[in-house]
Amino acid sequence: MEQSGRVIGRKPILRALAGEAMARPPIWLMRQAGRYLPEYRAVRKDVADFLELCFTPELAVEVTLQPIRRYGFDAAILFSDILVVPHGLGQKVAFREGEGPVLEPVRSVADLTALDPAPLRERLATVYQAVRGIAAALPPEVALIGFAGSPWTVATYMVEGGTSRDFSTIRLWAYRDPIGFEKLIDLLVVATIEHLSAQIEAGVEIVQLFDTWAGILPEAAFRRFVIAPTRRIVAGLLLRHPGVPIIGFPRGAGLLAEAYAKETGVTVIGLDAMMSLGFARDRLQVSLPVQGNLDPLLLVAGGAAMAAQAREILSTLSGGPFVFNLGHGIVPQTPPEHVQQLVDIVRDG
Amino acid sequence: MEQSGRVIGRKPILRALAGEAMARPPIWLMRQAGRYLPEYRAVRKDVADFLELCFTPELAVEVTLQPIRRYGFDAAILFSDILVVPHGLGQKVAFREGEGPVLEPVRSVADLTALDPAPLRERLATVYQAVRGIAAALPPEVALIGFAGSPWTVATYMVEGGTSRDFSTIRLWAYRDPIGFEKLIDLLVVATIEHLSAQIEAGVEIVQLFDTWAGILPEAAFRRFVIAPTRRIVAGLLLRHPGVPIIGFPRGAGLLAEAYAKETGVTVIGLDAMMSLGFARDRLQVSLPVQGNLDPLLLVAGGAAMAAQAREILSTLSGGPFVFNLGHGIVPQTPPEHVQQLVDIVRDG
Repeated sequence: MEQSGRVIGRKPILRALAGEAMARPPIWLMRQAGRYLPEYRAVRKDVADFLELCFTPELAVEVTLQPIRRYGFDAAILFSDILVVPHGLGQKVAFREGEGPVLEPVRSVADLTALDPAPLRERLATVYQAVRGIAAALPPEVALIGFAGSPWTVATYMVEGGTSRDFSTIRLWAYRDPIGFEKLIDLLVVATIEHLSAQIEAGVEIVQLFDTWAGILPEAAFRRFVIAPTRRIVAGLLLRHPGVPIIGFPRGAGLLAEAYAKETGVTVIGLDAMMSLGFARDRLQVSLPVQGNLDPLLLVAGGAAMAAQAREILSTLSGGPFVFNLGHGIVPQTPPEHVQQLVDIVRDG
Repeated sequence: MEQSGRVIGRKPILRALAGEAMARPPIWLMRQAGRYLPEYRAVRKDVADFLELCFTPELAVEVTLQPIRRYGFDAAILFSDILVVPHGLGQKVAFREGEGPVLEPVRSVADLTALDPAPLRERLATVYQAVRGIAAALPPEVALIGFAGSPWTVATYMVEGGTSRDFSTIRLWAYRDPIGFEKLIDLLVVATIEHLSAQIEAGVEIVQLFDTWAGILPEAAFRRFVIAPTRRIVAGLLLRHPGVPIIGFPRGAGLLAEAYAKETGVTVIGLDAMMSLGFARDRLQVSLPVQGNLDPLLLVAGGAAMAAQAREILSTLSGGPFVFNLGHGIVPQTPPEHVQQLVDIVRDG
């Protein structure tokens, strides 16, 4: 894989994602733009709600760039949310303070008639405008990552009406009426390809598919509602944008991460914090670059515990193509100085 | 393993747990006594709270026996809760309607001084009295299962103060001060051995360790806070009660289930609904009997989807030592007639 890496260009993260093992692996962190940063909170306090921040290009550009200025990460990730896709489809989505997202749920095939992918690009035009602004402002060695939620994970919010503890409504629909439920998944496959294509056309160089709730499904349902739609998205994207690195992040997939890596066609796999490093090296990294996987709570804890685990990750995975990241998003109580310590460890050993 | 199975006795589940492959595998279901049963709700409505039900022997006996009368399961499981152990240690535990358990949290080594394992058996005397009552009332072919939560899982409730979404308080304590946090784990190892021994002395024939939240830990922490204390509990129990079957249920362990099965000494492993059946057969069942793993939501859905998955589980796992169960507890909205359909499938194919 190293050969193809050399022709990609000079941005370090693109070299790693093309298969090159790097002496100093690139680093970015999921949710690196966010509430743990005082400069983010300063922007956030002047907007009415979270979606306004996502949909106001100059603000989305600003908060996307903040962690790049502070830490010099190897990639910026568009400041946005996976629920802009249901919004783009016409579902009512609101973010209430301290309560998380609230959606008017869709729970049957009949409910799907209210959703329309045709105006998605128009409804999300300000997102792509933000992408253009970020792409123009980034330092030349820093890559821009776009993203979407995977159909299964986005569907959990659309069907449950928000975050869920047990995901019983969506699982019951999927188990009782898999053909009907698949119409929602199909709609999300189309919308996700469209949304990611628009981001790529506006300037993102890498995309990541977040499948936060992949891990709650039994194997048969995982294959049908996680692997199969992801494979269709990857195929659709690569047809339109050959060579774009596609990072799949099937959180909680455990054992099934291997099938996911082999069968979806994603070009890179993101590892959650629970993923065994030995398994990741021996069974995943032999086939494709890996990204991960420090527990975000270790970043809150900081100190020797964080340093030891970060070094363990580096020593296990940096012999192959590897991007350092967390195993899930940064949490708000993270001290910003711990992030600097982590960057120093990854950069300087 | 089959040889040892034959000498154990005639109760079918004890034969399976001793290693015998059964043409008709035994079946019981986690949380088989509970709110989905009208006869349970009739008892429950006359008691002030959930703990009163656990601590009133004649009521605990009655609700434990209800699903045996209705379905003829191969095992009864003591009606109780994993949080009786913190209660037995002197922590304040309450169950509030619709809110789940609420505990006065322990969050430091200093907080541990309020907890005392010495009076545990006395504080939980009514639990063991219930065990004696159930043991006396069970049909001769039905075995009695006792249980406890694993130290890590019980600690999550003790430290977070109830159920948690992100388990950040306990993980931060464990990461920042592993030696201090281990004192809580050590205390729970002692209390768990004591509580399970008392149940065995009162008449339970099998014990299960529920580790509902095993799956949230990175590998190093999983080894330290899940595998190591479980190994100590198993060793302590087998010293006092040689030959007692000990079912470990490390929910969400995924890949790490194999290390758990090999290193803890549990004699049986419970599989969650996310566990791949092929992996369970090829990597776990070759070493020890397995139990599981129908998604409880498939039991709510019922019909063809449930039947197909139940048959898939049976055809994959009943060639070796196997007990049919769910992958997690029955949920309250389960139609009781679906449970009967499942029992019929397992019994009659």
